[in-house]
Amino acid sequence: MKHSVDLSKYQIRTDLAIESIKDIKNISKEKIEENIKITNVVVDDKVSSLINKKKGNYITIEFDDVTDSSNYEKVKKVFVRELNNLLNLLKIDKKASCLIIGLGNSKSTPDSLGPLTINNIIVTNHLFELDELSDEYRRVSVLVPGVMGQTGLETSDVISSIVDKFKPDFIILIDALASQSIERVNKTIQMTDTGIHPGSGIGNSRKEISYETLNIPCIAIGVPTVVDAITIVSDTINYMHKHYTYSKLNINNPLNKLMAYSPNYLKEKIELNKKDKETLLGIVGTLEEEEIKQLLFEVLSPIGYNMMVTPKEVDFLIEKLSNLIGNGLNEALHNI
Amino acid sequence: MKHSVDLSKYQIRTDLAIESIKDIKNISKEKIEENIKITNVVVDDKVSSLINKKKGNYITIEFDDVTDSSNYEKVKKVFVRELNNLLNLLKIDKKASCLIIGLGNSKSTPDSLGPLTINNIIVTNHLFELDELSDEYRRVSVLVPGVMGQTGLETSDVISSIVDKFKPDFIILIDALASQSIERVNKTIQMTDTGIHPGSGIGNSRKEISYETLNIPCIAIGVPTVVDAITIVSDTINYMHKHYTYSKLNINNPLNKLMAYSPNYLKEKIELNKKDKETLLGIVGTLEEEEIKQLLFEVLSPIGYNMMVTPKEVDFLIEKLSNLIGNGLNEALHNI
Amino acid sequence: MKHSVDLSKYQIRTDLAIESIKDIKNISKEKIEENIKITNVVVDDKVSSLINKKKGNYITIEFDDVTDSSNYEKVKKVFVRELNNLLNLLKIDKKASCLIIGLGNSKSTPDSLGPLTINNIIVTNHLFELDELSDEYRRVSVLVPGVMGQTGLETSDVISSIVDKFKPDFIILIDALASQSIERVNKTIQMTDTGIHPGSGIGNSRKEISYETLNIPCIAIGVPTVVDAITIVSDTINYMHKHYTYSKLNINNPLNKLMAYSPNYLKEKIELNKKDKETLLGIVGTLEEEEIKQLLFEVLSPIGYNMMVTPKEVDFLIEKLSNLIGNGLNEALHNI
Amino acid sequence: MKHSVDLSKYQIRTDLAIESIKDIKNISKEKIEENIKITNVVVDDKVSSLINKKKGNYITIEFDDVTDSSNYEKVKKVFVRELNNLLNLLKIDKKASCLIIGLGNSKSTPDSLGPLTINNIIVTNHLFELDELSDEYRRVSVLVPGVMGQTGLETSDVISSIVDKFKPDFIILIDALASQSIERVNKTIQMTDTGIHPGSGIGNSRKEISYETLNIPCIAIGVPTVVDAITIVSDTINYMHKHYTYSKLNINNPLNKLMAYSPNYLKEKIELNKKDKETLLGIVGTLEEEEIKQLLFEVLSPIGYNMMVTPKEVDFLIEKLSNLIGNGLNEALHNI
Repeated sequence: MKHSVDLSKYQIRTDLAIESIKDIKNISKEKIEENIKITNVVVDDKVSSLINKKKGNYITIEFDDVTDSSNYEKVKKVFVRELNNLLNLLKIDKKASCLIIGLGNSKSTPDSLGPLTINNIIVTNHLFELDELSDEYRRVSVLVPGVMGQTGLETSDVISSIVDKFKPDFIILIDALASQSIERVNKTIQMTDTGIHPGSGIGNSRKEISYETLNIPCIAIGVPTVVDAITIVSDTINYMHKHYTYSKLNINNPLNKLMAYSPNYLKEKIELNKKDKETLLGIVGTLEEEEIKQLLFEVLSPIGYNMMVTPKEVDFLIEKLSNLIGNGLNEALHNI
Repeated sequence: MKHSVDLSKYQIRTDLAIESIKDIKNISKEKIEENIKITNVVVDDKVSSLINKKKGNYITIEFDDVTDSSNYEKVKKVFVRELNNLLNLLKIDKKASCLIIGLGNSKSTPDSLGPLTINNIIVTNHLFELDELSDEYRRVSVLVPGVMGQTGLETSDVISSIVDKFKPDFIILIDALASQSIERVNKTIQMTDTGIHPGSGIGNSRKEISYETLNIPCIAIGVPTVVDAITIVSDTINYMHKHYTYSKLNINNPLNKLMAYSPNYLKEKIELNKKDKETLLGIVGTLEEEEIKQLLFEVLSPIGYNMMVTPKEVDFLIEKLSNLIGNGLNEALHNI
Repeated sequence: MKHSVDLSKYQIRTDLAIESIKDIKNISKEKIEENIKITNVVVDDKVSSLINKKKGNYITIEFDDVTDSSNYEKVKKVFVRELNNLLNLLKIDKKASCLIIGLGNSKSTPDSLGPLTINNIIVTNHLFELDELSDEYRRVSVLVPGVMGQTGLETSDVISSIVDKFKPDFIILIDALASQSIERVNKTIQMTDTGIHPGSGIGNSRKEISYETLNIPCIAIGVPTVVDAITIVSDTINYMHKHYTYSKLNINNPLNKLMAYSPNYLKEKIELNKKDKETLLGIVGTLEEEEIKQLLFEVLSPIGYNMMVTPKEVDFLIEKLSNLIGNGLNEALHNI
Repeated sequence: MKHSVDLSKYQIRTDLAIESIKDIKNISKEKIEENIKITNVVVDDKVSSLINKKKGNYITIEFDDVTDSSNYEKVKKVFVRELNNLLNLLKIDKKASCLIIGLGNSKSTPDSLGPLTINNIIVTNHLFELDELSDEYRRVSVLVPGVMGQTGLETSDVISSIVDKFKPDFIILIDALASQSIERVNKTIQMTDTGIHPGSGIGNSRKEISYETLNIPCIAIGVPTVVDAITIVSDTINYMHKHYTYSKLNINNPLNKLMAYSPNYLKEKIELNKKDKETLLGIVGTLEEEEIKQLLFEVLSPIGYNMMVTPKEVDFLIEKLSNLIGNGLNEALHNI
């Protein structure tokens, strides 16, 4: 079986950086605080060429559940601190003016993270003219450019025209992302100073939104809110492999018989081997991860490839996350 | 009693042109079709200096009720025809590209006419790159710039930066207006080629959105959706005068005793005289309309002057009107 | 001029009790805490017959601005305390189950207070079956019955059928009210144990929602969110009178010349006299308040009597108030 | 590998009847009109015992795309006709009063089909008291009971209490369903006279909403708007099998090399054999469909089993479908 599929069409809007670099441990620093995992990755020129990721800083905050109010506060605290660190690293002045941009489609729930976040921002730019604000506040303005399918306008061009006119000192972009892993959906916030590539504009440098195109620092903040059908199937194939090996090893473990649905198998460190995978999954078991994804792309295309996977509670989760990011931005940007 | 109030603060965002010129009959043409009144006013240089209205064409469509579906269709038909006439008058080519701008605050119901209208527009601009459209379609893109209180950005600057970047051949602005008369709220559509003055930017030419500032034709379409408290009181004072005179004249009319609440008094032509007004209303009855408004401004300011008057069904009416204007624009702009 | 108008048609859905009883000082207790005025009125049988108000407890909380977050917290604290007092007065047990009912039309902003409040309630009733909750929680369920114009069903019948089936120990009704005074709109919360009369069902005991009809305690919580056009005009006539007298008395006060729009006139205690009113307002100035309202009803009916007056920021204010009441109910009902 | 999983927990809210009976061809009648497939199934006592489906009529309308306006009209026409047929079959009188119930959670997009449909219904019940309607209209009222997680109240009990009080002659329930097949999501409308089993109330006859529990005809109308993660993986495994066999057979077909992603494989009739499946998929290839689902349930449970799959355009599709069903109900129920 040969796959000559042009994979570039299959690439997802914005990958989580952490997914590309999980094996390059020596460039990333990890810490865990109260069940929140923070990963800092610095991609320099050398690493950049290896992993097809832009040079820059990538911060990833992974957590379990923001619907719990105590956990919400903890995640927000980490978010504010990490954002402040990034602002310092970029030498952004306390008085530098900021334009916050909510990307995505406000009419599609999983894509509405950006526009919803904007609703929570304390906007001050126009009040500076009136000299009405105390020193604690920074100049902040916001923009919700919509998506090209709604507006007919290329989003990056909308942004660059507004930046040219209003000349903010830096911008922050908020966007919903596609994840390449089921487990991270709505449970990760990524921050980076590399900007972003909106829509399908991959490989098209004209569409990039970044320091290179706008000449001001561009911080991008993203949350993976969907995975696509290919990811869920290919992840499940890997889980099946692990589950199979785990079951073989623990077939006589009496604890296991007590516990429904082997809830442990994912948490255990299990040595996997190729032979098991082939026994369990035949030819499919012999394929590399990328080959499986190519195969799935071919198989799923005819039935309409635009399926996405979201948790049932997506409306509620997006609301919480946009609230957390909006309030976190207020704390980090204003001195309140 | 003297009133030295600075009345400029009291001016309303965008007056209906028809209200300023109701007495200058010789420059306006009126026709009535199936209970819809269409008024065409051409303000030339001479008239412009008299009535403080910009030189240009003003078309006003007055109707009773767009919640009735048969009336909705009639009003839409008139709207499409009048808009087409205006496009022809301005020599706008069938293939000229159009940017439609929905002004106002989507989060405040009576101010959401512009953003809601945009939801109904058939957007085509991005599809022209793909060469996917038949000849019936014109290039149309849309923009919802928000209001300065939400975005921190001066709305007219947002618009001019987008116009500079995307270079549409003409723009159409949709906005909710304040009316100076109770009777016209949600029952009038005004079209003009003079553009508009958003927000409180009166007397400030920098904020104008017009041919003069953008160098392309600027059509403004507005619906009065609110009246303020001053208008409702001063209108009511006039109604009291008319009602009083009517009652005096008809005090022995037996028909009137049968009809509750003298529903006729507004429809009759009654000659009003100053003496009656003074008898009925004392000192207040001796004031000119503008003096009454100044007095009311002084009286109402301390209790919070930001009251607005809307019909109870405002949410429903705004939805219908934005639907009518959106679909009307689609018909007029595209050849469908 | 005689007015034989049937005034019953003009009556407003639910008056604020405080407006009917402002002159009966000896039955009401007032206190002011940090600019929040709390009025407790106990209407007994004797008073009830005098003022056409049902026997029961009426608590009114008057405040300035809930969009200020510090004031929001103060008002919420007062609300929780007063509600707890009322629950104690009614001897409602800490474990008694509660059905909270959000009255009004979720699709009409000023009428959506009830449904929006429900969105903020911590609902627990169904979790009791699972025995999953700690002792701090009470059984709480909610209902949004809609309005008859939407559902086709008489609202009080919907409620009584649900109460019969689920047998809550008491109910709390949340509703937007019409005010008879401009100054109180969105600045008052009223609580009472007398239940309510939804819709236009005045004088129709079958539609009442109360202890008498349901056999369980019925607490009603209301906020005036609209005034009608008649109220705004008749209030303004009174303000004109006061403003006129104030201006006469202070005509040479140099302070007044410095201050624009005599902002003080409403705060001063001024002795008003009938003569001034007649001089200022002619015949209208000779009428009693109720006569003026009758006249205005007659005058305004032909132009469509369904105008309502709301502040420009009504969408934002209703959101804040529904949030305050929802969270206040959670604190008072659950032990959290 | 043995699976002792209790499968009852895995059952989905409301299956599409057509999926259970696809192999029992002799009880179903199929026709195709302008690319719309209509399947009528009558389940009698004998069939009922075989397929675990309630005795009754099941009508399924399958279509491609309701966002195309010409197709929208065709599907609506079929929907109205089939609903009228069902009403006739049930001998429901032209004047019989109807309560339409929108099930599901209005705050979760894929579950909001029921509440959104209700927004489009012409409600008349309350107008009959006023004798204001012409003979073309039937008494129609509506109810949006919410879901137990929001209200704390068992939905079927809310419905039965309203039915007891208002005594409609029959009810129509609208609900979003889970599909057991990716291909049918948002592309199928099912109608049945067997009522439904809301929420997790499987095996609990008290929760059923049907003629048996309410003593009036209960028509249920559903659209599958989600598939769960297990379905998407198990469907994909079947597609891989088919794709593998197709590829083997067509390996030298030059046409295939021209066409990207073998778009044809799903449309061809291909004879599948077990040997191929085992070669391709190892042990997994030897399992029966139900065994694979059991395995997937075990594998996916630890990572949170509440994933659902929806098309990216779900918000837009649900709006169109609720519009179609709402307007279709108006045409079928009223004589308009």
